[in-house]
Amino acid sequence: MKVYRKTDFPVAKIRRYLEPGPIVLVTSAWRGKSNIMTMGWHTVMEFQPSRIGCYIFRGNHSFDMIRRSRQCVINIPTADMVNVVVGVGNSTGESIDKFEQFKLTAQPGEKVAVPLIGECYANFECRLADAGLIRKYSFFIWEVVKAHVAPTPKYPRTLHYTGDGVFMVSGEHLNLRRRFRPENL
Amino acid sequence: MKVYRKTDFPVAKIRRYLEPGPIVLVTSAWRGKSNIMTMGWHTVMEFQPSRIGCYIFRGNHSFDMIRRSRQCVINIPTADMVNVVVGVGNSTGESIDKFEQFKLTAQPGEKVAVPLIGECYANFECRLADAGLIRKYSFFIWEVVKAHVAPTPKYPRTLHYTGDGVFMVSGEHLNLRRRFRPENL
Repeated sequence: MKVYRKTDFPVAKIRRYLEPGPIVLVTSAWRGKSNIMTMGWHTVMEFQPSRIGCYIFRGNHSFDMIRRSRQCVINIPTADMVNVVVGVGNSTGESIDKFEQFKLTAQPGEKVAVPLIGECYANFECRLADAGLIRKYSFFIWEVVKAHVAPTPKYPRTLHYTGDGVFMVSGEHLNLRRRFRPENL
Repeated sequence: MKVYRKTDFPVAKIRRYLEPGPIVLVTSAWRGKSNIMTMGWHTVMEFQPSRIGCYIFRGNHSFDMIRRSRQCVINIPTADMVNVVVGVGNSTGESIDKFEQFKLTAQPGEKVAVPLIGECYANFECRLADAGLIRKYSFFIWEVVKAHVAPTPKYPRTLHYTGDGVFMVSGEHLNLRRRFRPENL
């Protein structure tokens, strides 16, 4: 696994990376400790402000860290990181340091005090926008305040979880742009 | 396009089809008229009750039909239906009947008064569970009350929208079940 060189990306356009539905790694930090969890239940909610909604299981060690710090980073791994994804999802930050365990590079956030994962090709720094659905639905509404994306490859191979230990890997891309009305692009 | 033969599927397990993040076709009905829209902004929110959250753009003709009827059906198209997906997303039910225009087969819902799309391999009948986020976030929280899925193929080729007229098509599947803790499957 390599550490990607990334550039700033417009937060209003991150749907390009999240709407296809990849599994993501969510980093958190609270009182001097950091953690990483896997997450498959998320959706784009708005372009501007750049809004993301996600479900976080209450039993996760990350849940309280994220709820208390009101910050997180959403990191998108590529298919070559599948072992890290499975490892992160099947261990708990209660007993191990996942950055150390999975040999991941922690990079400082610019707008949040949460580490980014250098080996992920995209990192979205998030601040909690609405805590109102956490108690009832374990649902967090985030504003993405900073996005870092590797300029290449254009279409990274991503992992999409189906449950039951099975991941779909992203395939070919179809460009149907000419068949869209401009206002729908 | 063929009409799939489908069987009942446990509503608590539909994450298998939605978590990977496919573009879906949402059907609606209100006062004798039906409609179809495309949707890419959705997430699983709970296994049991089977809960889905989704963002619906206020400008869509479907928005009021869905908000008023408090019902919809989420239909998952396969990659061979990409022309239908683009056509549905680039036309409005205000002026055309999309079932007719795109030669789709309307099948009756069992638990909702909304048509299913026969040519989609999976159909999830939904009742509105929480209207509380519609005004502020255009966000609908649904309970899936009935699921119909075609038994084959096991892994249909799905479409995943990235914006800008480009769709990713689902690729290979990796089974890493043996590397999971049983409680995490």
